[in-house]
Amino acid sequence: MSSSSSSQSASGQAEASSSRVPNRQPTIEDDSDNEEGLLASDPLEHTLPEQLSFKRKQKAAASSPFSIPRFLSSPLGNNSNRSSPLPRGPQSRLHQLRTNPNASDSTELILNYLDTPGNAGDQLQDTKDATGLDWYVEGPGRRVGYDDLTAIDWIFEYAKERQRLRYLYTGASGVIGYLKQLADASQIWLILVATGILSGGIAAFIDVASDWLADLKTGYCKNVDGDGKFYLNRGFCCWGYTEYSQCHDWHPWSHALGVTSAGGSYIIEYIFFVVFSVLFAACASLLVREFSPYAKHSGIAEIKTVLGGFIIRRFLGGWTLVVKTLGLCLAVASGLWLGKEGPLVHVACCSANLFMKLFKDVNGNEARKREVFSAAAAAGISVAFGAPIGGVLFSLEQLSYYFPDKTMWQSFVCAMVAAVTLQAFNPFRTGKLVLYQVNYHSGWHDFELGPFAFLGLLGGLYGGLFIKLNMRVAEWRRDRNYLKGPVTEVMIVTFVTALMNYPIKFMRAQASELLYLVFAECVDLSEDTLGLCKAGKANTGVITLLIISSLLGILLASFTFGLQIPAGIILPSMAIGALYGRSVGLSIEVIQGAWPSLFVFGSCEPDIPCVTPGTYAIIGAASALAGATRMTVSIVVIMFELTGALTYVLPIMIAVMISKWVGDAISPKGIYESWIHFNAYPFLDNRDDNGSSIPDVPAAQVMTRIEDLIVITATGNTIQSLRELLARHRYRGFPVIDNTKDAILLGYISRTELAFALSSAQNATRNLDDATEAYFSHQPLSDPASSLDLRPWMDQTPITLNAKASFQLTVSMFQKLGLRYVLFTEKGSLRGLLTKKDVWFVLNGQEDAGYEDDDDGVGVGRSGFSRLREENEGGGSEERGLLGGDVDGEDDGDGIR
Amino acid sequence: MSSSSSSQSASGQAEASSSRVPNRQPTIEDDSDNEEGLLASDPLEHTLPEQLSFKRKQKAAASSPFSIPRFLSSPLGNNSNRSSPLPRGPQSRLHQLRTNPNASDSTELILNYLDTPGNAGDQLQDTKDATGLDWYVEGPGRRVGYDDLTAIDWIFEYAKERQRLRYLYTGASGVIGYLKQLADASQIWLILVATGILSGGIAAFIDVASDWLADLKTGYCKNVDGDGKFYLNRGFCCWGYTEYSQCHDWHPWSHALGVTSAGGSYIIEYIFFVVFSVLFAACASLLVREFSPYAKHSGIAEIKTVLGGFIIRRFLGGWTLVVKTLGLCLAVASGLWLGKEGPLVHVACCSANLFMKLFKDVNGNEARKREVFSAAAAAGISVAFGAPIGGVLFSLEQLSYYFPDKTMWQSFVCAMVAAVTLQAFNPFRTGKLVLYQVNYHSGWHDFELGPFAFLGLLGGLYGGLFIKLNMRVAEWRRDRNYLKGPVTEVMIVTFVTALMNYPIKFMRAQASELLYLVFAECVDLSEDTLGLCKAGKANTGVITLLIISSLLGILLASFTFGLQIPAGIILPSMAIGALYGRSVGLSIEVIQGAWPSLFVFGSCEPDIPCVTPGTYAIIGAASALAGATRMTVSIVVIMFELTGALTYVLPIMIAVMISKWVGDAISPKGIYESWIHFNAYPFLDNRDDNGSSIPDVPAAQVMTRIEDLIVITATGNTIQSLRELLARHRYRGFPVIDNTKDAILLGYISRTELAFALSSAQNATRNLDDATEAYFSHQPLSDPASSLDLRPWMDQTPITLNAKASFQLTVSMFQKLGLRYVLFTEKGSLRGLLTKKDVWFVLNGQEDAGYEDDDDGVGVGRSGFSRLREENEGGGSEERGLLGGDVDGEDDGDGIR
Repeated sequence: MSSSSSSQSASGQAEASSSRVPNRQPTIEDDSDNEEGLLASDPLEHTLPEQLSFKRKQKAAASSPFSIPRFLSSPLGNNSNRSSPLPRGPQSRLHQLRTNPNASDSTELILNYLDTPGNAGDQLQDTKDATGLDWYVEGPGRRVGYDDLTAIDWIFEYAKERQRLRYLYTGASGVIGYLKQLADASQIWLILVATGILSGGIAAFIDVASDWLADLKTGYCKNVDGDGKFYLNRGFCCWGYTEYSQCHDWHPWSHALGVTSAGGSYIIEYIFFVVFSVLFAACASLLVREFSPYAKHSGIAEIKTVLGGFIIRRFLGGWTLVVKTLGLCLAVASGLWLGKEGPLVHVACCSANLFMKLFKDVNGNEARKREVFSAAAAAGISVAFGAPIGGVLFSLEQLSYYFPDKTMWQSFVCAMVAAVTLQAFNPFRTGKLVLYQVNYHSGWHDFELGPFAFLGLLGGLYGGLFIKLNMRVAEWRRDRNYLKGPVTEVMIVTFVTALMNYPIKFMRAQASELLYLVFAECVDLSEDTLGLCKAGKANTGVITLLIISSLLGILLASFTFGLQIPAGIILPSMAIGALYGRSVGLSIEVIQGAWPSLFVFGSCEPDIPCVTPGTYAIIGAASALAGATRMTVSIVVIMFELTGALTYVLPIMIAVMISKWVGDAISPKGIYESWIHFNAYPFLDNRDDNGSSIPDVPAAQVMTRIEDLIVITATGNTIQSLRELLARHRYRGFPVIDNTKDAILLGYISRTELAFALSSAQNATRNLDDATEAYFSHQPLSDPASSLDLRPWMDQTPITLNAKASFQLTVSMFQKLGLRYVLFTEKGSLRGLLTKKDVWFVLNGQEDAGYEDDDDGVGVGRSGFSRLREENEGGGSEERGLLGGDVDGEDDGDGIR
Repeated sequence: MSSSSSSQSASGQAEASSSRVPNRQPTIEDDSDNEEGLLASDPLEHTLPEQLSFKRKQKAAASSPFSIPRFLSSPLGNNSNRSSPLPRGPQSRLHQLRTNPNASDSTELILNYLDTPGNAGDQLQDTKDATGLDWYVEGPGRRVGYDDLTAIDWIFEYAKERQRLRYLYTGASGVIGYLKQLADASQIWLILVATGILSGGIAAFIDVASDWLADLKTGYCKNVDGDGKFYLNRGFCCWGYTEYSQCHDWHPWSHALGVTSAGGSYIIEYIFFVVFSVLFAACASLLVREFSPYAKHSGIAEIKTVLGGFIIRRFLGGWTLVVKTLGLCLAVASGLWLGKEGPLVHVACCSANLFMKLFKDVNGNEARKREVFSAAAAAGISVAFGAPIGGVLFSLEQLSYYFPDKTMWQSFVCAMVAAVTLQAFNPFRTGKLVLYQVNYHSGWHDFELGPFAFLGLLGGLYGGLFIKLNMRVAEWRRDRNYLKGPVTEVMIVTFVTALMNYPIKFMRAQASELLYLVFAECVDLSEDTLGLCKAGKANTGVITLLIISSLLGILLASFTFGLQIPAGIILPSMAIGALYGRSVGLSIEVIQGAWPSLFVFGSCEPDIPCVTPGTYAIIGAASALAGATRMTVSIVVIMFELTGALTYVLPIMIAVMISKWVGDAISPKGIYESWIHFNAYPFLDNRDDNGSSIPDVPAAQVMTRIEDLIVITATGNTIQSLRELLARHRYRGFPVIDNTKDAILLGYISRTELAFALSSAQNATRNLDDATEAYFSHQPLSDPASSLDLRPWMDQTPITLNAKASFQLTVSMFQKLGLRYVLFTEKGSLRGLLTKKDVWFVLNGQEDAGYEDDDDGVGVGRSGFSRLREENEGGGSEERGLLGGDVDGEDDGDGIR
């Protein structure tokens, strides 16, 4: 891990620029973030180098300030443990330490987001007047921005948006006002349409580019008259021929080298195949490592976390978009067992983020941004499968945390625009949006429901076992360092994959092509390239090969999903399912052919093929997808849109249902949830299904009790003492009480707001003394000019719960209101605190390093992301904010903020 | 209004039966509720006849206990009104009045719902031990059931369910335990599948029966050889003929009467048409009036309210199901401008309610019941349009308040089962699920996007104006009594409708048949019955007639929607839209035919019809539906499923979008929301869009302040004083404070729980004296045998907010957590109270009679339902609980509980 340039970013850039990222914390990973002076550091931390990195497990004080581990060490739900779960009494500790008093802060008022271009300036004063809020006596407090890797405050964001709209609707009247409102309302639609168009375009580009690259592994295109048409893939090169064997424009590499013997050309082509595969995969991996580590993997686990209300800077940036797009083409072409479907969701979200930067009002509101990301995710799936409705439901079912009705409509519009764009590009020149779209001409018979249910069982088994295997591999990869870094690892896996892929015809084909051939009815195929359409018992060999391919696919996919390369798991799952599905279908066909008079086949008509093996393939694909992702409605709808007929919806539904049940029994979490858990991302699932996993204890049993909290009293503080408090403790916020005896709760002040208030009190305008008294309650006798009233920066109406309330109620509040913390009181006295992070800890039963010393939901999951970054050893340079800077000069980069 | 039998229901039936509805309040409308002794009255009310009815605006005390009206009388958002929004001090009034001390209560412990068959009995004691909750020191308090027309407590219901699951999973182990869990998990699926099958069956029955009845208006079927085939409708009677004119088995009424002259037969058939129409409508209306007033209307507004967490007994009962089904057949056949689509949602929900009664565990949990109703609603739309996915999205977008992922899957299963059942019945013998399913063979041209957008504009205009007109008619109907009762009114409207329908060919056809003919491409029609497929300028007459029909349709539909008859607005809207859509399509066709060389028509190919007017009809239908209901995604998906192709999704989407925008500009509420508002149903919309309509004021400005509240102190009460308090005040709950000086909040006790606790303290077992001390806090010195500790019945952890919190935050809490009330505190002292009702008042700006004296969200909207009942003057008998009794002997009837 390289920390060579961390001193650059932490080199006292405070107050260097007026338009900078609010209060961005420097971490050791911020290697190359020093361009353009946009990023500033918190000088308080600069003076305390041992606290620079969040990643490091800090040596906690003798008494840990965190009561969760204690709770976790005793069995959950131990009902006999009823003896006094209440706090032991309000003896809070106020620490009075000293540190560098010269600190200042570089945060930006989030209230400035209320500025609309043209009337900036005295907006802050306007704000106070127009809302009727007197920050000194009421309100949630003024805010500065969010740190990286922190949780957002949904309630605050939506309140901010409502306030903004109120200004807009009351501030301006007449035609101008109406036009302003119209312009404001149309922003979101512009973003959505642009996102849809870009997503559709990128999807078309990936389709064309990856096809060309993949075919490059086997040969190249050259007209018989010698014209260079190297840019055509095999399909377009041989356009018009019904069989590839008649096409002479396509030159396999053996031909090019002049090798004509069967054995010789096989070996030559085998070598080319393997070399190109490894080359492509290595390029993809290098791109990821060098330019954007966030472009690796499918991104769905991270997007889920982001949509749950988490800030990850640069995860959705312009560089991520470029690298992920190019990397996907290469990765898909390499023949690895991975797909572009999941990553397309990430690509679409990056596109949305790019366009959002053009619109300050949207970009300034984290909650609205998440609505747009939900819509973009729908567009991603829409272009991945040519299924706009399926995309919306995918976003709703799998990804989104908060999905109001208007988001559904926005998602639908974005998904449709993306699908229409893709159709306009027509990348396959067949009018189909996806290579493996299929139309079945025949129905199904009642007796087939048995095999369909069996496919569901197989899907569940696959899903459950695959997840277990994949997570085992991921743990093994994390804990050991046999391999010399991620690129080497990618190359090794690709080498093995290519070695296996080439000899086995089902594995040699690109996954999408394989699906096309396996899904299709035999009558629709002009050429039976894979030998799937032979009649009768001749199929037994094919069935064996299908099963072997399927098993090898599971193995290879488990090693592939998790590599440092853009890679999705949706398509490999579908391919595996299609392979075992087709094998089951062929088996039924063989049985029916051998014993046509069996009573179960009574409904078959004599001269027409009774069984359509292709339908088994698509049902198998659906079952495998359900087993891996645990989605239900979205899968059925995606398959419905792929086949375009309601006929097969019922069998697909049955298979998906059984698969989900079986999968849940083997491995309760889906693949994305497993990765969220593995990476320790701070994601609070708001599914009610998890209700039974919430321990049935009073909140008092899990909360951080007041005697373990660092609290601030309303009076008796000076600017210096508060600075010292900040320097001493890394907690992300502090409850404010009246005095240590009664501990009556007055409010809650976050670290960022406190730091900003202190530094602005000592800036050029005010320049208060270090010894200035700072208080949090009304002090009628004190002189406003020579004292600091911090009430405007304190949340004076924090959400509180009775200390006797149940933990389940607390979790409901966090999930449904999107809170960051809840304070527990009893008759007005502070009793304790629970943060989103604490709740996450309790629910996940996970005790992870690196969390202990930042006490707010804001800091949850840092270690997960640290791990994500640490894995990029070797180069380790972070994505550079170039594209972001191009689009919006004022912005801090191309991250999610 | 008849109050003749109110004395029957209030005739002291307390303790008559052990399995009875918990604490049902008698109201004057309870005319015929005295069967089977199932319903009991609260004797406290019996002794105070002047308080018997909630409908009556009670003469409030000189100082109204309700501060909302005061607030409403000053303009909202008056920012200058900042002077001390805080309470004036905690001087609570405790009233000490006397009443009949012999009262007892007839409530049933909701905890008994935890009983699983076989281990009833000492469950209550088990409950306390197993949860580890000591009711005396913690917890949300024990509960009794809900009253009719009250709001449910979502948090409590879900907590109850989690607790139940915990018993199930920890209580039993081994194979038996596993089987029990399996049985428990499969309950919901059995209900859903049964609901789907019944809904599909009923839909098929309605299709067949209404077609037959409708054709009966024109003639009857009799084979040429004289066989009676009267049970066949015209389509089946003439099965096999390509044109009806060739069919001799169908005998128009003029033939039957031997009239052969053209004029004579026209008059005869006109008369038959009108007489049958009026007859059918009168029968439907009589059914509704006599057997089930809740069967009237579409029911969607009420279902929305119920799903929002409201209890309406008997609304989803067995009688409602029967009456609505039969009434629908008659109403549809009558040719009124109404549809069966919306009512089918109600029918499906009734079916679900029927099956839920078989399963105690589901039936006992109001939150789970609402999940099932959401799924059933999807099944209703699924069979109405043959669109299972559209049904799920309809339920999600239009109806459901809380829609977790698992509900989506359950909805999908239920909707698919219903669609498959309908397909198995195959009511039209065409394999189509809906008569007007259509397949287009041609695409659309770019220049058509203009007309399509124009259709969207028309749809928005239609929707906005229709809603205004319909509400105007509804107000007129409510305020005046020109007509002699609802049946007469139905007959008059039907008479006028039939008179208009017959001469105009587009209006004479049944709406579904009209849609079939208007949607179809001309090449697919064997017979151009409506003359829509003529070429060129011959169409101008047809265009005029289409527009006239459309306008008359709007007029008639506005008078029809709201009659005392089962009637939906979806199909009439679609018909109106299809009529104007087709007229626009024909106009474009005429223009293109006249000036084919115009530059806009450049993309038309010469010999192929360029414009497909049928597609304009379907887009028009979508736009009209969007204008009326303001749904978006569901409409597009329903149309997509009707047409089966993605081709027309983009134009439909554009039209729907424009229609919604235009409609919102004219009339902000959709038709269902307008009716909810009109009926003053207590529905808190949880759409974020409404955010801007929430006044930006501190909650303290709207809350009921402590000085206006009736509060109970922790000590100083006797059983008698509390009884008197209950008798004196009709509030649904009372905050409990420590003393009137500090007003430290201790908890909240609901009226029902307090009444139950008091009566059980004086039952045969305990038999405490009237003067017994009753307290709400720990009294170490008092003797448990001779005093009453009410803490177990008090919610000791009520949700509280800081009194300085904003009203918007309060609304968020209500919407997202499903609360019934919020208490406001400041440093532990009670400051005020807001109930769901209060919030609803503020948001709706409506001041309605009858609310003032029941102070809990539980009582919201009573007047709305009272009005609903009052309209049934004449007979006025309530639905009788017969079917409910059949299904579940223990149940209280067939209501929603």
